[in-house]
Amino acid sequence: MFALHPQLKADTHFVCDLPISSLLLMNDSNYSWLILVPRKPDLTELTDLSFDEQTKILREINLVAEILQKEFGAEKLNIAALGNVVSQLHIHVIGRKKNDATFPKPVWGNAPAKPYESAEAAALVQKLKSLLPNE
Amino acid sequence: MFALHPQLKADTHFVCDLPISSLLLMNDSNYSWLILVPRKPDLTELTDLSFDEQTKILREINLVAEILQKEFGAEKLNIAALGNVVSQLHIHVIGRKKNDATFPKPVWGNAPAKPYESAEAAALVQKLKSLLPNE
Repeated sequence: MFALHPQLKADTHFVCDLPISSLLLMNDSNYSWLILVPRKPDLTELTDLSFDEQTKILREINLVAEILQKEFGAEKLNIAALGNVVSQLHIHVIGRKKNDATFPKPVWGNAPAKPYESAEAAALVQKLKSLLPNE
Repeated sequence: MFALHPQLKADTHFVCDLPISSLLLMNDSNYSWLILVPRKPDLTELTDLSFDEQTKILREINLVAEILQKEFGAEKLNIAALGNVVSQLHIHVIGRKKNDATFPKPVWGNAPAKPYESAEAAALVQKLKSLLPNE
């Protein structure tokens, strides 16, 4: 059975379930940083999924990437599946701005996370949910 | 017309052209680090491609990822499209090992590149070509 890794749970706010993945908001206000976690047990690599499942995730990446560009002012997208620390497959879809905390460096390990105020996080989750198709 | 960005050209060894992308070997022997560059002009984001083109790139990602796992001893894959420094769309497909230069940190910015000896680079390019379908 699928269960979200405790570290991913601790570091994020849950937004909603898309057809294949759970969408999470990283609790770091330095960036517009979303994470897609395919809801299938025992995944480590993108290549652990069938091609059909991969293309479904691709659709979800496109969907949230477009939201970051159109609604969150992303000037550059960073899309990545790394998993060196938390091995459960998760895909970062990050909206970067030229004046963000660490641009042009990657988001990992270059600045301490700046957690959202809880009202701010709730508003962002609500905004994201309103922009996504209902399950 | 498509032309490879001079910085990508300077940092890599050309391996071969796959149906959609040129395959490059990053000139950094710290990792088994491949780069796919879709041969279409004026691309910055993965989302600049049609869904059909994206799925073709997905097939090429799967192809080289499998080679990294089966033939280069990759213990973890890192797959990423960042492009904060060189904006021409390029997709990193990197084979990580638990004892590599910077694991579990990302490859970017954490250790100086360790260029290959030219005979070593030529042998790796040859090995990769022999494992890939001929155009």
